[in-house]
Formats: sequence, structure tokens, C-alpha cells
Amino acid sequence: RPGVFYHSSGVTDVIVWAPLKESVSLEIAGSGSLSIPLQKDKWGYWILQTTLLQPGDLYRFSVDGAAPVPDPAAVSQPQGVHGPSEVVDRAFDWTDQEWKGVRRDELIIYELHIGCFTDKHDCEGVISKLPYLKELGITAIELLPVAQCPGNRNWGYDGVYPYAVQQAYGGLKAFKQLVDAAHEAGIAVLLDVVYNHFGPDGNYLECYAPYFTDKYKTPWGKALNFDDAWCDGVRNYFIENALFWLGECHVDGLRLDAVHAIWDFSAHHVMQELKEEVRLLEEKSGVHKLLIAELDLNHPRYVTGIGKGGYGLDAQWIDEFHHSVHSLLTGEQDGYYEDFGDMWQLEKAFRDSYVYDGIYSEHRKKLFGAPVGELSYSSFIAFIQNHDQIGNRALGDRLSLCLTKEQLKLAAGLLLLSPHTPLLFMGEEYGETNPFLFFTDHQDPELAEIVRKGRREEFSYFNFKDDFPDPQDPESFDKCVLSWNYRGSDLYKWYRELIQLRKTRTALLARDRHHMKIIKQGDVHSRL
Amino acid sequence: RPGVFYHSSGVTDVIVWAPLKESVSLEIAGSGSLSIPLQKDKWGYWILQTTLLQPGDLYRFSVDGAAPVPDPAAVSQPQGVHGPSEVVDRAFDWTDQEWKGVRRDELIIYELHIGCFTDKHDCEGVISKLPYLKELGITAIELLPVAQCPGNRNWGYDGVYPYAVQQAYGGLKAFKQLVDAAHEAGIAVLLDVVYNHFGPDGNYLECYAPYFTDKYKTPWGKALNFDDAWCDGVRNYFIENALFWLGECHVDGLRLDAVHAIWDFSAHHVMQELKEEVRLLEEKSGVHKLLIAELDLNHPRYVTGIGKGGYGLDAQWIDEFHHSVHSLLTGEQDGYYEDFGDMWQLEKAFRDSYVYDGIYSEHRKKLFGAPVGELSYSSFIAFIQNHDQIGNRALGDRLSLCLTKEQLKLAAGLLLLSPHTPLLFMGEEYGETNPFLFFTDHQDPELAEIVRKGRREEFSYFNFKDDFPDPQDPESFDKCVLSWNYRGSDLYKWYRELIQLRKTRTALLARDRHHMKIIKQGDVHSRL
Repeated sequence: RPGVFYHSSGVTDVIVWAPLKESVSLEIAGSGSLSIPLQKDKWGYWILQTTLLQPGDLYRFSVDGAAPVPDPAAVSQPQGVHGPSEVVDRAFDWTDQEWKGVRRDELIIYELHIGCFTDKHDCEGVISKLPYLKELGITAIELLPVAQCPGNRNWGYDGVYPYAVQQAYGGLKAFKQLVDAAHEAGIAVLLDVVYNHFGPDGNYLECYAPYFTDKYKTPWGKALNFDDAWCDGVRNYFIENALFWLGECHVDGLRLDAVHAIWDFSAHHVMQELKEEVRLLEEKSGVHKLLIAELDLNHPRYVTGIGKGGYGLDAQWIDEFHHSVHSLLTGEQDGYYEDFGDMWQLEKAFRDSYVYDGIYSEHRKKLFGAPVGELSYSSFIAFIQNHDQIGNRALGDRLSLCLTKEQLKLAAGLLLLSPHTPLLFMGEEYGETNPFLFFTDHQDPELAEIVRKGRREEFSYFNFKDDFPDPQDPESFDKCVLSWNYRGSDLYKWYRELIQLRKTRTALLARDRHHMKIIKQGDVHSRL
Repeated sequence: RPGVFYHSSGVTDVIVWAPLKESVSLEIAGSGSLSIPLQKDKWGYWILQTTLLQPGDLYRFSVDGAAPVPDPAAVSQPQGVHGPSEVVDRAFDWTDQEWKGVRRDELIIYELHIGCFTDKHDCEGVISKLPYLKELGITAIELLPVAQCPGNRNWGYDGVYPYAVQQAYGGLKAFKQLVDAAHEAGIAVLLDVVYNHFGPDGNYLECYAPYFTDKYKTPWGKALNFDDAWCDGVRNYFIENALFWLGECHVDGLRLDAVHAIWDFSAHHVMQELKEEVRLLEEKSGVHKLLIAELDLNHPRYVTGIGKGGYGLDAQWIDEFHHSVHSLLTGEQDGYYEDFGDMWQLEKAFRDSYVYDGIYSEHRKKLFGAPVGELSYSSFIAFIQNHDQIGNRALGDRLSLCLTKEQLKLAAGLLLLSPHTPLLFMGEEYGETNPFLFFTDHQDPELAEIVRKGRREEFSYFNFKDDFPDPQDPESFDKCVLSWNYRGSDLYKWYRELIQLRKTRTALLARDRHHMKIIKQGDVHSRL
């Protein structure tokens, strides 16, 4: 278990993994330059017990005598990604002893970005809106990644400290308060975590160990080392991270970002190993814990049970449901929408979860996917909007800007009466018109320019002609904060009612694959 | 089905895959410069039916008007890897109508290199030795790859025409004669095929289509494209190749080289697809067809049935059996032998098929493998010598050079009384002392030097100090040809008797995982 653990006894345990290094010392900032050597165990972990490191202290590690660098398992980076790590007293007075979590088939997920959700931009802001969310009826919030990123404004996918809550959100304690308060309100908390790449700035992992491999390439650079020499420490780093959130922080489930970019050819896939560990935690805690993959593969193995040759994850995102609805309603056919836009795709998405389940995809230029077979509908997360589908449009424009109110209601019906597990994106429920733009706050001007350029190239793909907002401009972030103009919204009532229907109607509760039948226009002699 | 097919009607079908190209024309060599355009179908295959292309004709394709290049699915390259392709009349008078193949649990495999097996260096030479092999009692020969390689001397792993039998071996007709004669002698023919990389010289694939991908890296360069855009044509190219050998050439099984370097993250793994296609052929032909993987993964999924979440291959090589025996008998502990050398590894290899089945490997620096569970012993191919284990020693020296006669007999006993499927390497049965060296015949001087240098580096790994034979020197090949000094060999009789025992004794025929028990020295109060 990597990291720094302060105990009420006054002793602090320090553990850091650096199997190929000759020396590691703890460097405590402040009065004088205190440097304490660590001892290496046979697995390559460097260990220390000390009373010299107390909550609030700032520290770094010097590896093989090099300039000190932050702790890869830091839970606090008060001065940002390049600054020292901070010791935090992790003790917390939990009040959620009665909480048992939510079952997968009860999930109605509400995805939100802590920074943009309220004008407080932090965990406290989210807590203030829990009554609203309870009233809406959703059963879980899903937080975009909270791991410390460069600067103060970031979607969360540039994280370089998977154990540290972004300073701007209030840090670890505020995060635990949010989870506790959500449970008090009867709402589960899912957290987006990124185990497939590291952000471009503030990544000190390679000062410690072979965290990366040259064997594979990801769209975001070198792949993390899940199956090459020395991978055990890397796997442990991420599995312990999952257990940190699910265990210490009482989070109810993880949304695993881009699992298709976690390359692992070993006989014991890291997703399976993760599931096995989380199952043990579940048994120990008595609380349901969920593992949900973002997966661009249409590969049923990920959510198939371990006993049946699968990795045992609880659910996966199905972008195809979104694409089917979106291209039908908007008429868009650019980019990956070229594979959608006909009624048959929507029908198939609704009934079979995967649209491309072994058939040829014109966009991908290959046969794609395999059928889901007997897998339960609740193993698939459907949505008509999400952070990516909105934010990866040049103007970050939501459906509310291009659809009529009746169309929005139709889309909401498709989502919430779908047999799949529904996910809403913050504000969708009342037709928020503020955009959700891509925003960053990179401190390195060169990197900032690369990001600008990268976005521009991404949009050339969608044949987007105009200029578009600068991700680095603080205004790009400010524009995205919700307006909270839900009062009197017809759509808001519609969402609330659909959620109630979903939670109470027997026909909607029994979401059995064998009883699903699509009746088409011609069959009922009427129009939708 | 890519390639050129001459029919007895006089018409020749021409098919070549080039989905992103604007024009493909057939260029027939000889009198004048005959150029005939092909027509593209909707899958990107270019097609032509013509009476102008007859057996014996030499041809190339011009793609988008570029200089003509050979046919990637050529069955004959009479002037080597850079020369034109040749049209061959594929009709053959088979006499093996009664042949039904061998079952997996009847396999006793004899691996041989056609060039070094006899001083004829070709298929005819192998035919002349079939009576000897029948007398020995083996049930299958396994041929090192026969695909056309640069030059005349090559192990076979530098092949660049997977459909063409190496000219030096006698070409397609001689190969079919060998298969037919083997079947006549009651011996099955397995063929080593390389679907994980292409040789470094004479590879024209990229003139046609995206056969390679940048997503993954193999130790031998760019990975073949089994799961990226346009992969369907690549998959088809190799699956049709398998069906060519198993169908048209009556081969009984394939040994798939380095399957761990076939990167496929798609939902329908190409190994599974291959198995499904081969099963159809099996049903159609009524002959057993086997798929055997060389696999450095200890990953049971490959040989697990398709219905149980596996890829359904029939068997995989287990190098660990070799390493256990080798390091115990020779005392070698260099390179990967550092993970072996104790009795427990041999015991585990014998009983559990995988030694590293989820435990830490000091050599690989990670936990490695997963248990085989209920998989049958016959799904695992064991050996105490093979082309790689001998040939990848600097001097290509066999066990016969360093072990006593009694040790050789002990090793043979371990192999042939093992519950696993045994594989012998040519000459092993009589203690051949000629080496099996690495040899090449690259025509490109630069490449020849790279190969020399690469070998030298490989041996630095084994702490090998001396100089060693030059792979490019014709003598390196000549030295490897078998001496055939088996007459009067005690060891030869020993092998023959062990094979007879294996084939007849009930106790050795019932190779049930649940009935295997290892009795150790201490248990029986005696020494082996």
C-alpha cells in the first residue's frame, strides 16, 4: 500500500515503490533540511516509520541522490503538481454506517464536474445541491476525475496524482464530506478514475520505477506497464488506488476511463484482478461496490463473470446508444456518426446493447464487436449526453441548443425507459443551455499551445469550419458553470416523472432481455 | 481467397487485396509487356478472369501505376523473394483418400527442418526417410516453416510469401508429394506457420494494403494488423493461408509461431476465428485438423474451448517443461534458466503443465501465468530439445554433447512417459552430435551484417564468451545436416521402445490429470 499514513499514535508509515533504485530518502521541508533514508524490502518497496513526519508537513523523496520529487501516492499537493506532497491526517468521522450502497439495477446515474456544477466550484458546492438531486430522483452521482491535475481548471483526465483530490475541489477531507453527505441523502457516489494514461505535466513516475512500457502505444503517449517486467508494482499502485477510493473514501463505484487503452496480455488481466480485490472489500464492508468501464470495444468479456471466462466488471458504457439517438435526432453524419443515423441502429442499440456486434463498421473500416449474449441490460450504461459527447464538440453545445422541446422529451424517454442503466449529464434534466467546453489550465506555455493545436485538429475531423473557444481561457471554464434555471422547466418535470416511472412501474423494473420486443411504426399503424 | 488459380478449363482467376488503391493491373512477363487491369469489388479485392495467364507464366502486379511487385499470395517464387511470381497448376493426384488424420492424444511429434534432414535438402529427401520414421514409431512430423525466405538456407522464420513453398525444397508439387507419401506411411504432417511477423527482406505487403499497425511492437518490428482499421483483409489473408495448407495441401495441423506476438484486442480474436474456420474444414473433409500454438504466456485461454470463453486451439508448446529438464541435467542457470534448476519446477511441469501459473518469476520480474485448471494434458506439447532450444545456443550444440548416455535416456523417459504430448527434434532419437546452428542466406550485405550482430548480442545475454559460427556461412548450414549414424545406437532402441510403451501401455494411455501423482525420492526410499 504505497503512500504516507499518519497514525493517531503519532507514528507515520512511509511506503514508496522503487525496485531498481539504490537509495531513497524522505526529504522533509521546513526548518532545516531533514533527510531520512528509507529501507528497501524484497519486493522493491522502500519503507520508513517515523515520528518526524506529521500532518501538514511537506515532503518529497530523493531517489538515488537526485533532486527530490513528489510522492506518486500523495493524497495532497497543495502547491500543485510540481510542488511537495503534504501529509494529511486521514481520520474522518463517518456517519454513513447504515449505508449499503446501491445495486447495479437500481442505478440512475448523474454525471457531474465538481468545478462546473456550482459557482463554488468545489465539493461543498456539490453538497449544497444534494437536496435537488434527491428530489430529481437519481440514485448515484458520478464525478469526473478528481485526481490532482496541472492548474485549477481541468476535466480531470490530465491527472498525475491518482490518490490526491484536486486542491481546488477542497482536498481529501472535503471529498470525504461530500461522500458522507451523499450517503446521508441516499445517493451513491461513483468516481471516474484514469488508469490508462498519465497527464502530460507533473508526471514523476519514471523517477521511481518502470511504470510505462514501450510495447504498446496509446493516443495519449506511452502505455502504462500492466504486463511487462516489473508490472506487479504498477498493478498494485492502481489496485490500491481503487481500494483507497472505495475503501478509505467510501466511494460506491468507479468509472474506469478508457479501459480499451489498458493493454494487458497477461493471463491474469488487471481488470479481473481489480474485480477480485474489490469483491473482497465488498465482502468485508458489506457495501455494494461497482466497477464500470468506459470501453470502446463492444467486447463482452469485460462484463462477463469471472467464472465464465470474463473479467467480471459490473457494467460498461455504450456510446452507440448515444450515437444512435443523437444522429437520428440531429441528422449529424460527421465523424463516427457516419455509422449511425438510421432507425435500425437505434432499434439494435435498444434491444441488443451493442449495435456493431460482429458486423462491418464503415467508420472503423472493419468488422467490429461481438454479441452480448445473455448479459444483463443493467451491465450497460446508456446516455443521450455526457461530458465527452458535449465537450468534444467545438462549441461544447448541448442537445438543448439544437433540438425542440418535444425532441428533448423524446430523447429523455428513450434514455429513462431504456432497459439499460441510464446516465444523465448535469443540467440535461432542465435543458441547460450553458455549454460544456474543453478547458485546461496548463502552466507550461508550450503544452498550452499543443493542447490548443490538438483541439483544432480534432475538429477538422468533424468538418467544423469556425474558430472555437480557447481551452486555456478562464472564460471557457466560467461559461460551463450550470445556470440552475430549472424552476418552471417543463423538461425538468418530465425527467422527474420518467425517473419515478422507472423506479416504480413493474414493466420497467423487469428488464429482461428475453422479454424485450421492439414494435415498429408499421406494426402499430401509428407514429411515435 | 487471394491468389492466382488456374483451372483445367484454361481460365485463370486472379484475386488480390488492395482496398485503398485506385488501380491494380496484372503484368505478365515474357513476349512483350502484357498489362491487364483488374476490377475492384466492394471489399477492396481486385479481380480478373483471364485465359492469358497459364501455368509457368511469370507475373507481377502494378499498383497505382507503380513499378510491378510480386503477388503477396504467390505459391511460387522461382527467382526468389524479389523476383516475379509464377502461375502453378495446383491440381494434384492425391492417394490419401482413406486418411483420417491423427487425434490430439495420439500425437508423437517429430520436428524436422527439410533442408538439414537429409543431404538432398528437400521434400524428396524427407520422403526417402519416411520408412525410418515409421519404424521409429512417431505419428506426426512437424516441418519448420516452408514459406519462401530470402536465399536458399533459412530456418523459415524470415518468410515473406506465406503461400509459397521455398524453391529449394522443391516447390508446391514436391510438398504435396511429401504430404501424400507421409499419409501413405500413416504419418501426419504438421507445418510451422508464421503469422506474427514478416521477414526483413522481400516484404511487399505494404505496396498493397495496411497489413501492419503502429499500435503494437514485436521483437521483429512492426506488428501485423489484426485489429486496427482494414484488419479484415489481413485476417482473411492469414486464415485463407491456414486453409490453403490444411485444405489444398492436406496438411494435418499447423504449429502457429509465437502467438503471443499476434496482438488482437478485438472482441473476436483471430485465433478463435481461425479455429472456427478450421472446424468447418474439418467437418467438410472428415479429417482431424490441429492448431497448435507456440505461446510464451502460460495463458490457458488459448487452448480453452470456445464455449468456455477460450480461443479453442488444440494445444500449446510448454517451454517450461524443457527448461526444467534442461537446467536440472546440465546445471545451466544463465538467461531464462535462472527460473529453473530445482526439482520442484520439474515436478510442477510434469504435473501441472505450467510451472509459473501465477507465481513470481525472477527472470520475468513479475507474477506470471495462470493455472491450467481442467485442461487435458494432451493440450500441451512437451520437448527436451527443439530447433529453438538447440539452435539458439551459440554453438547449436545438442544435449548429446554434454550429457552422459544415461542422462540422455533419463531425459527421453521424462519426455515420452510424460502425460503431455511429446515432440522430438530430428536426430535426438539416436543422439545426433551434429549441431543445429542458426543459418541464413540473406542477399543484402547490410542485412547479413545486422543478423550477425543481432546473434552476437543475443549470446551476450547467455554470458557466452567465445566467438561463434557465422549464420551467413554456407558451412553453418552444411554442418547441421543429420549424420544418420543411428545404426547400432543404444539410444535409438531406447526411444523406439519408449514410443512403443507410450502407444500400448494402458497406464500410459490414460493420461488423466486427476490420476497424476508425483512420488518423490523420500516417499519411496530410493533414488531415481
